[in-house]
Amino acid sequence: MKTRDRILHCSLALFNEEGEPNVTTLHIATELDISPGNLYYHFKGKDSIIAELFADFEQELLELQITQAPLDSPLLNMWAYLQFSFETMARYLFLFRDVADLLTRFPALQRRFNAILAKQRQSLRVLCEALDNESELQASDADIASLVEHMTMTMTFWLNYQRICAKKMDHFQPDLADCAYQVVSLLVPYLADDSKDDVKALAQGYL
Amino acid sequence: MKTRDRILHCSLALFNEEGEPNVTTLHIATELDISPGNLYYHFKGKDSIIAELFADFEQELLELQITQAPLDSPLLNMWAYLQFSFETMARYLFLFRDVADLLTRFPALQRRFNAILAKQRQSLRVLCEALDNESELQASDADIASLVEHMTMTMTFWLNYQRICAKKMDHFQPDLADCAYQVVSLLVPYLADDSKDDVKALAQGYL
Repeated sequence: MKTRDRILHCSLALFNEEGEPNVTTLHIATELDISPGNLYYHFKGKDSIIAELFADFEQELLELQITQAPLDSPLLNMWAYLQFSFETMARYLFLFRDVADLLTRFPALQRRFNAILAKQRQSLRVLCEALDNESELQASDADIASLVEHMTMTMTFWLNYQRICAKKMDHFQPDLADCAYQVVSLLVPYLADDSKDDVKALAQGYL
Repeated sequence: MKTRDRILHCSLALFNEEGEPNVTTLHIATELDISPGNLYYHFKGKDSIIAELFADFEQELLELQITQAPLDSPLLNMWAYLQFSFETMARYLFLFRDVADLLTRFPALQRRFNAILAKQRQSLRVLCEALDNESELQASDADIASLVEHMTMTMTFWLNYQRICAKKMDHFQPDLADCAYQVVSLLVPYLADDSKDDVKALAQGYL
């Protein structure tokens, strides 16, 4: 692996483990056994590393197509979308540890983070409408709008909610199936009885 | 006002406005036009100020009784509980800006924060059961358990969601009626039709 890629790889691991505000460039250089000068040759500072990691995250999440591998049912498509999304988010866990703080310190990322949220809302709306078309969802347009907003908010913050409720915040291990399930469970009251049973089966299979 | 109280009052205002990690004790002393030594005489450092403000918040929130001023309907009681809760939370807005970061830096507060969450879950459960007793809610025990968890999570993070979606994060003004409404709206799919109309009327009156 090239030094530049090793720096990114190591920074991501340290940020996710220790929390980005607690990791310095010196810390990263020491972990890689390279000189601070060598690190500085590749990145002007921690801000540049964060910007590059954020761009990687952004690209992975925006490339996630809800039409990829369409499955048997709209509900399974929703489940697959959420699983893929949370797997991507967990690889960049440090971004979701204190997203409001991060976006306040790096205002250039706020607009881009909101573009990601907008894309998530749009994907969730399409997935809800597919359920609606199959008569699996019994919801008005206003219900779907409210549902999509709550699903988006839950996608952004359930990892953080798990963290603050965790017995050991320091060595927190996210439970991604629980995250996906919590988002799907917002659908449950609007689902037809058959689909409610499908959600229960998903829950038993994955939780 | 005594110097000690002035320090607390000023610290709270600065923390809420600027974000606690961005405020130093020197900053607080300068704002109050007192010497750092005078501040240090009252508080050993920023940690002691945060601990005292957290204790004030904790007391205000734990003293909030859901039986206070019982209103005409279980739905209005729920609404009143959420309004009072969010008003208290907004007075200590800095705690909710990056709660995971704060609890990681002050592990002693994590257990107490989780005790507050437990109290909120219990209050929400009692309020949901009151709706259920009046046949306003059509939900199984499992539905209510899931609902209470989502309501608690939404109470904790909707202020933060508003912040990251805000046009200007720096001078963010929370919309407390929207927060209360978003929590109540989780109930909607489980409500009887009459109560759904009551929620719409609440929304039109407060939003």
